Amino acid sequence: MADRAAELFDQLCDLGEKRIAETDATGIDMQVLSLTSPGTEQLEATAATAVAREANDRVAEAVRAHPTRLAGFACLPTADPQAAVAEMERTIHDYGFKGVMINGHVQGRYLDDKFFWPILERAEALSVPIYLHPTQPPKAVIDASYSGFVPMVSDMLAGAGWGWHIETAIHVIRLILGGVFDAYPQLQIVVGHMGEGLPFMLQRLDVMPTAMTNLKHPISFYLRQNVHYTFSAFNFTPTFLDLLLELGVDRILFSADHPYSSMAQARAFLEGYRSAMPIRSGLRMATRSAS
Amino acid sequence: MADRAAELFDQLCDLGEKRIAETDATGIDMQVLSLTSPGTEQLEATAATAVAREANDRVAEAVRAHPTRLAGFACLPTADPQAAVAEMERTIHDYGFKGVMINGHVQGRYLDDKFFWPILERAEALSVPIYLHPTQPPKAVIDASYSGFVPMVSDMLAGAGWGWHIETAIHVIRLILGGVFDAYPQLQIVVGHMGEGLPFMLQRLDVMPTAMTNLKHPISFYLRQNVHYTFSAFNFTPTFLDLLLELGVDRILFSADHPYSSMAQARAFLEGYRSAMPIRSGLRMATRSAS
Repeated sequence: MADRAAELFDQLCDLGEKRIAETDATGIDMQVLSLTSPGTEQLEATAATAVAREANDRVAEAVRAHPTRLAGFACLPTADPQAAVAEMERTIHDYGFKGVMINGHVQGRYLDDKFFWPILERAEALSVPIYLHPTQPPKAVIDASYSGFVPMVSDMLAGAGWGWHIETAIHVIRLILGGVFDAYPQLQIVVGHMGEGLPFMLQRLDVMPTAMTNLKHPISFYLRQNVHYTFSAFNFTPTFLDLLLELGVDRILFSADHPYSSMAQARAFLEGYRSAMPIRSGLRMATRSAS
Repeated sequence: MADRAAELFDQLCDLGEKRIAETDATGIDMQVLSLTSPGTEQLEATAATAVAREANDRVAEAVRAHPTRLAGFACLPTADPQAAVAEMERTIHDYGFKGVMINGHVQGRYLDDKFFWPILERAEALSVPIYLHPTQPPKAVIDASYSGFVPMVSDMLAGAGWGWHIETAIHVIRLILGGVFDAYPQLQIVVGHMGEGLPFMLQRLDVMPTAMTNLKHPISFYLRQNVHYTFSAFNFTPTFLDLLLELGVDRILFSADHPYSSMAQARAFLEGYRSAMPIRSGLRMATRSAS
């Protein structure tokens, strides 16, 4: 366990040779770097701004050293939307970053809150996707739904075992119901883990009709038009088929979630779907990764 | 809307001719009656005991009138586990009911709480399944995750549009993590809605290994051995395939969720899977229904 933690730390911190060697070995042309979870979303604005800037600078340095093999997703000080917009501009314009990664709610506030809409507006204007990465649910949810077990079990139940995924799916649904995509119809969100349960529930969500939601379209419309979905270690055939049948191949992106999961396993899973997921100019999204 | 509500009320209250005529028309041999949601779980013990007894008596009367076409699931005063056990005994022994239906948490307490284990123990001893029907999540979850929209949208988001299903899935996972199925290995839970998202997440749940959970088996083992899954209006091909591929046909039960959904549509959906879901001696579980 301690050995694996040390290895993980080394893998996270290596932004060059070893990681590129692993992509070479697995036939992955391009890897997207970003600050690892939990990111800056639970920090106060001043700390978040400083951490985001430093993390993005380190990613930019790695991308500069390997411009044909690495790309960057910015982390943002979401607690201060104006600072977040400025950091987005800086990293997209100056560093050529390809998108931003936001780790879920900001101290319990979701992005459908109009407080955050300047971030969403600017992402649409810059034509960059927002990768919505999981985070632990708000404490009230953990207390009500996930507590009562030994701490390690409750943590995993609220986290990577279940709660992370549901929390992220809820966040996407909140964006839709909050009218974000009616306001910013070109905005693109990316979620991992084969869609965080959303494909399973996609048709059911439409029991909330437009007459109730006051949206321009059914909920499923936005899941098809404004969201992309990546593997991120959910290399499970039945889950993938659910995603593929509901959303179609054009909405699905390869990802490996390095170093938390294996590039080789993700690549092997993809090979099983070569006919459904044609490999175009390299894999479209390589391994999400971490600075 | 008002017309549909009136029709629904008529359909819920009709425990005889019209409902049987509809099963005739759709080739459904047997229908299971139960008190409709939200049931007795949010009531205080005394009220719950009285309501449960009255509802079960009415179901028994309908079953007595049509013993080859109707069967009963008991509702229980879960707030008082001893009274619940007594009502289970009464309805199984005296009325021949086939199982019980519990509508989720009991004023915020889940069935993994040992307070409720006498109910689980008796269900196992009597070899009757517990149908775990959805309910609204605890208020803290609604406030944290589902609020901020107009009331009708928040209600549906916390309810039949999304929250119901996730809440039920969490309840099943809590039963597993709480060691219920290690204590009562023959206990069978039934969940609706093609598995309430559990098939999508089944393989991921095993990231919580037995070394962490202290259970006898991986989490997926219990989802395969101790849970059955019904359609209940999730007549969605990709969702069904996810369930079928993860759990196998022997764990899947037909249901229509009359009168909330159409018997004819459920039956038509089933016909598309005749080879995977052989119709044995009639459909194994007919339409869940309501007294």
